[in-house]
Amino acid sequence: KSFDIAVIPGDGIGKEVMPEGLRVIDAVAERFSLDLAYRHIDWASCDYYDETGSMMPPDWRPQIGECDALYFGAVGWPARVPDHVSLWGSLLKFRRDFDQYINLRPVRLFEGVPCPLANRKPGDIDFFVVRENTEGEYTALGGRMFEGTERELVIQESVFTRTGTDRVLRYAFELAQSRPRKHLTVATKSNGIAVSMPYWDERADLMAQQYPGITVDRQHIDILTARFVLQPTRFDVVVASNLFGDILSDLGPACAGTIGLAPSANLNPDRLFPSLFEPVHGSAPDIYGKGIANPVAMIWSGALMLDFLGRDPTCPDGERYRRAHDAILSAIETVLAKGPRTPDLGGAARTEDLGKAIAELVKTI
Amino acid sequence: KSFDIAVIPGDGIGKEVMPEGLRVIDAVAERFSLDLAYRHIDWASCDYYDETGSMMPPDWRPQIGECDALYFGAVGWPARVPDHVSLWGSLLKFRRDFDQYINLRPVRLFEGVPCPLANRKPGDIDFFVVRENTEGEYTALGGRMFEGTERELVIQESVFTRTGTDRVLRYAFELAQSRPRKHLTVATKSNGIAVSMPYWDERADLMAQQYPGITVDRQHIDILTARFVLQPTRFDVVVASNLFGDILSDLGPACAGTIGLAPSANLNPDRLFPSLFEPVHGSAPDIYGKGIANPVAMIWSGALMLDFLGRDPTCPDGERYRRAHDAILSAIETVLAKGPRTPDLGGAARTEDLGKAIAELVKTI
Ligand SMILES: CC(C)[C@H](C(=O)O)[C@@H](O)C(=O)O
Ligand SMILES: CC(C)[C@H](C(=O)O)[C@@H](O)C(=O)O
Repeated sequence: KSFDIAVIPGDGIGKEVMPEGLRVIDAVAERFSLDLAYRHIDWASCDYYDETGSMMPPDWRPQIGECDALYFGAVGWPARVPDHVSLWGSLLKFRRDFDQYINLRPVRLFEGVPCPLANRKPGDIDFFVVRENTEGEYTALGGRMFEGTERELVIQESVFTRTGTDRVLRYAFELAQSRPRKHLTVATKSNGIAVSMPYWDERADLMAQQYPGITVDRQHIDILTARFVLQPTRFDVVVASNLFGDILSDLGPACAGTIGLAPSANLNPDRLFPSLFEPVHGSAPDIYGKGIANPVAMIWSGALMLDFLGRDPTCPDGERYRRAHDAILSAIETVLAKGPRTPDLGGAARTEDLGKAIAELVKTI
Repeated sequence: KSFDIAVIPGDGIGKEVMPEGLRVIDAVAERFSLDLAYRHIDWASCDYYDETGSMMPPDWRPQIGECDALYFGAVGWPARVPDHVSLWGSLLKFRRDFDQYINLRPVRLFEGVPCPLANRKPGDIDFFVVRENTEGEYTALGGRMFEGTERELVIQESVFTRTGTDRVLRYAFELAQSRPRKHLTVATKSNGIAVSMPYWDERADLMAQQYPGITVDRQHIDILTARFVLQPTRFDVVVASNLFGDILSDLGPACAGTIGLAPSANLNPDRLFPSLFEPVHGSAPDIYGKGIANPVAMIWSGALMLDFLGRDPTCPDGERYRRAHDAILSAIETVLAKGPRTPDLGGAARTEDLGKAIAELVKTI
């Protein structure tokens, strides 16, 4: 089976790490005989916005909507285009229009990566954040009243649907079920946010009854962030709303050393639309153009993409995709442990040095 | 000038740490000739709820509304009374009804407290979280639609008023102004939460124009939590909405060792209503009754209370209150560095051992 992949570098270091992501995918594709076709996209970027006044062309959907996956760099450059234009006009639009309702973000401490937490070693931090990705706190619903006066006020609405809540919980319960520890942390804040969060708890409690083998630990977001720092070994799968998942999936990788390495998968598990794979880091205008960005998050995101593609029930050679994923992961482990290292990890290597080293390794692993 | 203080131990370890808080306040009151009168309150507790079916008596407001301060232990015991009853019926009600619009939470790493962050020493972590405390994300506004069907959905509203936003920003700018580094971090999430957070940014930008001497650093909450872990030295004053402040004021103390030591001041700076001083930790049912709770957060909260009372413009002996605050703080420093230590910090001392040690020290400092 062949898969079409839309390649969308976006902005800033997205453009620098993307070639390394592709280099590694090309290498595993050759090694494991994967049949992948790329479609290169230069929109969904502030460059494109500068030229055209919009983030995407009118026919963006026909251009990429039939692809099997979107391999995405980073978007946004606040000094040039306001976030609400660049992000809501591309990344956040993809998440919603392609109903990528799962944002899956692995958190792992690797050998060779300095950990900001005292006395933690590789193996101690190894969990998944499963973030709801289409609704919840991220909305533009609401508005202002008494504008421009002392009485001015703003109402912001969050929306939690049963469909949206249940499907992310379901995914997280299934993921926990598939893991040895079978432990699920459910983030909440029902003691303060008095309408939506009690609903979230209620749905989680109901679903827990269907998974008697899973240990469910419900935590308020405040103390949960504290425990990421104090007891990171405790976590296995953590499921959270859009906002809480956003927070936890930056905090988790920070506890494991840096958000610079963290990948993410924005999934439509039903495969009605393409899923999107992107590093958690942004476009990093401050280091753009120097060729020193760490490409590991981009490369790891590519591995997640191959893994996801290979689980397509209509794909007869899924096993090869899974091996490609595993090969990339172990090449990443080796490079992080032994170098080369980019400046963010204390080395002097360049973006492409890491890409090449990982691409070489996957050929032999 | 004499001050009336309502003493409200509440639930669980609130009842165990309160006597130590009072012991220390009594000691400094004697030492610095402070004129304080207590009013002991046994409601605002789950015990009271068990007896009466409500958290507070109908005349709760006349009973404490004329006091100068509320010295508060901890409330809540989820296994006995649901949070939305215990918290919204007492603590959260006080914050709103007494318009305690500032929740001030110091974060500090002390000598003798093991830090979960690698290579951080006392002095590296020393900042304030200024949390909006009356509005924002904490509301019971909104509701359900299509209840009980597959189409079920929940809308949760957040409310940000100009008054509420400006006054917490003002307080934070003034606090930053009074500190040597004059650095203010403004938490936001305007790239995702598209109505309220851009408003928050807008008000912060406007106010920043009035404080040209302050360095203002605006950070999205996701990366901000990461930086608490990775770069804690960077912070001086952090201002945040109700929810974000809640998160940051648990995460900050965790980065400084434990949330068990963190105090908080729920302030009505205009003194139209009593302010409330409480530990950040809760009632901790799991350790209640053993006499091993660490009373430092309670005692430190008492110091914040004396400091606040002494700043009353009608108080001629404010200087003595400030000295009482400082004496308690340095006694806390000494005890944390040299012991005795409760089990949470690896010792075998009991709650009252710490209380007595600190009370002894303040007499001589
Ligand atoms: C850029 C921003 C809108 C985005 C988010 O908050 O979802 C990012 O932080 C992420 O986590 O992917
Ligand atoms: C108990 C809870 C409602 C409260 C809050 O979220 O404000 C607590 O976490 C706090 O920080 O004081």
